[in-house]
Amino acid sequence: MVNTQPQPLELHEDRFFDPDDGQRNIAREIFNCIKNLPIVSPHTHIDLAPFVDPSMGFGDPAKIFIQQDHYILRMLHAQGVPFEALGIPRSDERPVESDPHQVWKIFAEHYSLFRATPSKIWIDQTLYDLFSIRKKLSVDTAIEIYEQIESALRSPQFSARHLFSQFNIKVLCTTDAPSDDLTAHRDIQTGIWQADIRPTFRPDNIINLDAPDWRAELQKLCQIAGMDISSYSTFIAALENRRKYFRSLGAVASDHAVISPHTEMLSHQQADAIFRRALHAKITHEDAARFTAHMLIELARMSSEDGLVMQLHVGAYRNYSSSVYQLFGPNRGFDFPTPIEFTRSLHSLLDRFGRHPNLRMILFTLDESSYSRELAPLVSAYPALKIGPPWWFHDSLNGIRRYFDQVIETAGLYNTAGFNDDARNFLTIPARHDVWRRSSANWLAGLVVRKIIELDEGLEMAVDLALNLALKAYRLR
Amino acid sequence: MVNTQPQPLELHEDRFFDPDDGQRNIAREIFNCIKNLPIVSPHTHIDLAPFVDPSMGFGDPAKIFIQQDHYILRMLHAQGVPFEALGIPRSDERPVESDPHQVWKIFAEHYSLFRATPSKIWIDQTLYDLFSIRKKLSVDTAIEIYEQIESALRSPQFSARHLFSQFNIKVLCTTDAPSDDLTAHRDIQTGIWQADIRPTFRPDNIINLDAPDWRAELQKLCQIAGMDISSYSTFIAALENRRKYFRSLGAVASDHAVISPHTEMLSHQQADAIFRRALHAKITHEDAARFTAHMLIELARMSSEDGLVMQLHVGAYRNYSSSVYQLFGPNRGFDFPTPIEFTRSLHSLLDRFGRHPNLRMILFTLDESSYSRELAPLVSAYPALKIGPPWWFHDSLNGIRRYFDQVIETAGLYNTAGFNDDARNFLTIPARHDVWRRSSANWLAGLVVRKIIELDEGLEMAVDLALNLALKAYRLR
Amino acid sequence: MVNTQPQPLELHEDRFFDPDDGQRNIAREIFNCIKNLPIVSPHTHIDLAPFVDPSMGFGDPAKIFIQQDHYILRMLHAQGVPFEALGIPRSDERPVESDPHQVWKIFAEHYSLFRATPSKIWIDQTLYDLFSIRKKLSVDTAIEIYEQIESALRSPQFSARHLFSQFNIKVLCTTDAPSDDLTAHRDIQTGIWQADIRPTFRPDNIINLDAPDWRAELQKLCQIAGMDISSYSTFIAALENRRKYFRSLGAVASDHAVISPHTEMLSHQQADAIFRRALHAKITHEDAARFTAHMLIELARMSSEDGLVMQLHVGAYRNYSSSVYQLFGPNRGFDFPTPIEFTRSLHSLLDRFGRHPNLRMILFTLDESSYSRELAPLVSAYPALKIGPPWWFHDSLNGIRRYFDQVIETAGLYNTAGFNDDARNFLTIPARHDVWRRSSANWLAGLVVRKIIELDEGLEMAVDLALNLALKAYRLR
Repeated sequence: MVNTQPQPLELHEDRFFDPDDGQRNIAREIFNCIKNLPIVSPHTHIDLAPFVDPSMGFGDPAKIFIQQDHYILRMLHAQGVPFEALGIPRSDERPVESDPHQVWKIFAEHYSLFRATPSKIWIDQTLYDLFSIRKKLSVDTAIEIYEQIESALRSPQFSARHLFSQFNIKVLCTTDAPSDDLTAHRDIQTGIWQADIRPTFRPDNIINLDAPDWRAELQKLCQIAGMDISSYSTFIAALENRRKYFRSLGAVASDHAVISPHTEMLSHQQADAIFRRALHAKITHEDAARFTAHMLIELARMSSEDGLVMQLHVGAYRNYSSSVYQLFGPNRGFDFPTPIEFTRSLHSLLDRFGRHPNLRMILFTLDESSYSRELAPLVSAYPALKIGPPWWFHDSLNGIRRYFDQVIETAGLYNTAGFNDDARNFLTIPARHDVWRRSSANWLAGLVVRKIIELDEGLEMAVDLALNLALKAYRLR
Repeated sequence: MVNTQPQPLELHEDRFFDPDDGQRNIAREIFNCIKNLPIVSPHTHIDLAPFVDPSMGFGDPAKIFIQQDHYILRMLHAQGVPFEALGIPRSDERPVESDPHQVWKIFAEHYSLFRATPSKIWIDQTLYDLFSIRKKLSVDTAIEIYEQIESALRSPQFSARHLFSQFNIKVLCTTDAPSDDLTAHRDIQTGIWQADIRPTFRPDNIINLDAPDWRAELQKLCQIAGMDISSYSTFIAALENRRKYFRSLGAVASDHAVISPHTEMLSHQQADAIFRRALHAKITHEDAARFTAHMLIELARMSSEDGLVMQLHVGAYRNYSSSVYQLFGPNRGFDFPTPIEFTRSLHSLLDRFGRHPNLRMILFTLDESSYSRELAPLVSAYPALKIGPPWWFHDSLNGIRRYFDQVIETAGLYNTAGFNDDARNFLTIPARHDVWRRSSANWLAGLVVRKIIELDEGLEMAVDLALNLALKAYRLR
Repeated sequence: MVNTQPQPLELHEDRFFDPDDGQRNIAREIFNCIKNLPIVSPHTHIDLAPFVDPSMGFGDPAKIFIQQDHYILRMLHAQGVPFEALGIPRSDERPVESDPHQVWKIFAEHYSLFRATPSKIWIDQTLYDLFSIRKKLSVDTAIEIYEQIESALRSPQFSARHLFSQFNIKVLCTTDAPSDDLTAHRDIQTGIWQADIRPTFRPDNIINLDAPDWRAELQKLCQIAGMDISSYSTFIAALENRRKYFRSLGAVASDHAVISPHTEMLSHQQADAIFRRALHAKITHEDAARFTAHMLIELARMSSEDGLVMQLHVGAYRNYSSSVYQLFGPNRGFDFPTPIEFTRSLHSLLDRFGRHPNLRMILFTLDESSYSRELAPLVSAYPALKIGPPWWFHDSLNGIRRYFDQVIETAGLYNTAGFNDDARNFLTIPARHDVWRRSSANWLAGLVVRKIIELDEGLEMAVDLALNLALKAYRLR
């Protein structure tokens, strides 16, 4: 039977809660106490341009919901939709779909692929709450919905600045390269519009000596730091120089993505020798890996001195498909997790800095088997460590449930770091926090009905999960 | 208190559904819509003899339910029952139990070992539905039930052909060696009795150069292909020759079992050198492993050309116990899983063929930690990949629940391959699909009551899980 | 809002059961049948001194609940409480807090850290049931509760011997070094007070050739065995000598902690050469690891001869933090799990002894991904193997649920070893068994309401889980 009538889009008040009446009622009660709390967003990939220049918009619906979203791109690609049909530019500049309406229609046609995925939950809620869409997205409704979104985006209520207030965002951090001059942050901080937006120091491309653009990044770093980086010592000095600059603009954290958390202390001579080889010739993978393993310790040393919270995102094999990377660039959904070992890998770092009173390090994993095996035990002993929230694929209803299930009994709630939305799409930030808050409320209600905690404890823990843990972990208060 | 009265065997209408009223009612509603759908069985180890020759039966109850079932054998062995007492022949031909009644009595005596295992679920349902047994299996009822089964098996309704129709099997695939002449398949296809039964190309013993029977297998392959296989080139040609023959008899898939999914491209010279060493001398484990790693890529290349769906079953350390293997042969329950890494291992293959429009590769794992970590992300991006259903130990109520829980949020439903029963015992096929369908219905009902999907979506997804996904994944329509 | 009124401490009759009415009622019914069964405690770290000398107490509340408990120490340390403030002695003898009241107050102040952790469950139940505390522990109630505990501990009902009867302990095993003369066990066995308390043979420090105190341990072993240990042969003879002595005092088991379960058979010459190198010089890590891998097989050989049940605790990287170990010693919460591979690792041992009718080996893991992947399959085939209960961090409500969920479908119930409390604090033994029994009852109730087992089966399995499986696994009957 084909529905000729478009079906209504609805968001149920009790969505995602367990079906048991007792648990659902308590979940609703807890959720109602936290749903309107301010949003703390300490780790995002948001582009600040629309905040700096209010005349700039977020782009068209296809860009916002499809072309910038690696979750959506990979799923459509897996089902045989070419990137070209989605309007993703090719490096060889051969033509790709240029009409965003067509891209949107393909998306609508394939929307059932996303059943039971977090992508659909985030998008449906954003369409409903933000754009007042009341019909389900389908081939029949695609263009009508596209136009409704586009029209809304042109209205003044959809300026980035207005939405920042409407979303009730208390603080938001971006992610930035050391060579970034942070003009956007400076402009906002010195402008009329006031908002707590902070940069984050992410030096991956300059620390990873065999990154394809390493030499170019180093050049940029030399320029912006006003230094000649010709040795390991000057490299370290340049990084410290930039960290100081980032902190002067409010940065509270650094961010580091590594495929392995292996740490290994090199002597100054060894580090310098590798660095100089990288400067003057093509470096081996082994050299680059050892340098990264050393730099993690060096970065922990810097954090213990300047207080930047060190975020460690572990396990992604990035740009896995050569052909996708060459033709369509990074962040197209071709980054895949690998198994991760933390205990032995972090030993060298933790033995030096794990008990340092000023170090704060937040660990993120793509290997859920490490939650109960390694991360929960480690963070429950080392004062420097916190475990970050479920990351990437695991920022989902089941992923969050497994996280609570596997982490809290060993780590306790108070060695966790609250929630990160990790958003690239500013418009979905409320939906992502809503899923976290609903999941938190439902988990806590489960503890209450099983008489593991009492309701007043659950309410306090819910506020901590929504707000306080993130503020505290990132030294934001 | 000992029960002197035999207890009734019952199958509850709502078995395996969650106890919550709301969820159970929806689960029942969904299940009722799919329970009578035809069975698609694209991966089995069924012996076709009883289909070719209707006068042949399936054997006695001890053979059917015990001696052929590695799940049953291992559990009894673990509890101290010698294989000899179960009538498993010894390679040294020393005497073993020859009376199937005695074997059945031992089984009945130990039947409580199987509480809460899938084996008991499959057997109880088969006894109840197929053999109309209404008493629980126990020492007291053992012989009565044995005789009831035996008597039923002699009736015409229990011919393999009759049951094939009764089970409502739409299509069934067997698993066959390249050297198999597929006489049974030809006989069925040219006979009066019509049924969609297809062979599957499984060349493990000829690709694994250090398999104990490799030289004998190669000899058989030479004969059946009518070729002199004296080099890597002729080896590849012979495989392609056999694939063509398998396809001519309806094969839609190949099947490959490897302990590691490591892939590595060798040059023609390297591959040829290893192959020639194997021909002329005993090969090293390293050489054999490299050859397998290379052949996986080569087999993907063949699949991309001839369209056979490539099934990859990863992680079993087979014939682990030397003494069991030597005395009692393979498939006695002594094959054990190992940890598996997919992302790095498959890179070489996927970078070559992962985006090829004609490759289809279905991945099966024995390491559940790879579901959310690697398999779901990989299949959600690569058009060539699907994730197979829970395999072996994980084809169980909890195993299926964990699979849905860990796979679907990232992979979506439509990058999965539906269900395989992997049956060796033809008589249990309906029971195995029943468990899958009940588990699917219950999982979907859980999504409906949590307002993650709507009921009409759940009904559609249930039909996909029972039928369409398997048909599509195996290119059966 | 600050509560000025101390809140009542309550233990709900149905705590930890699922909220569904049907399941909860059955769980309660099952639990009521097992809650008063005797306690079997085959693996503990209990100090026997208070049993030998009834005038000795257990120490003050701070010692009992904080200083001896690595779960509590690590959590407070992680939240910035120095070990010194908790009264943990420093190896450099610099002063630490000496007033147990102060230590207890710090604990009370931080008690909310333990929300939803097993530590809080065990302590709350012990405070309520054993000490009749009826107020929640908080800063306000800390001293009052401290004094109530202290006063109770001085009463005759709180003698170790009295509590042993009150707890209804049928049998309890301690853990002891080969060089221990087991005076306490002898004294109890020859004294007036009768109790089934047995030693366990744990030779880790003498088998691990690079243990820091190895030479001293060897010296002690020479003395107590009255042997000159100058070769591998005499080393083996000394171990066998001590096993015999342990068995003469009722030992039923040995215990072995290894970071990896790797096994590898060395020739006598190889083993002797490594052992002599250790005697005469500092040994390499590689040598020590190979010797351990060899000794596991040798210990299995001994067990197959003398019948001691071999417990294998795998995966802990002990004394991870150099500074904590040097200043505060072992067992301060700085032992962390690592990933574990069992299948390949145990092959050499299992191929020799896995089917030996007299070997019994119980496997414990800190890596939950090995439950369904390796342990359940292995124990479901090898008669020598059982899987031990959830260990350490995993002895928790969720840990136990995951264990049942991932182990039983493949292993069956009857290849498991029941429960170990692994207690260091004698007073919490009833609480730890209570959590296990409640979790068992709830899990079985879940099977009953899903029609996977019937209630009478559930009741029988509950008794097995509470009592019979442990007795049988440890050959205690």
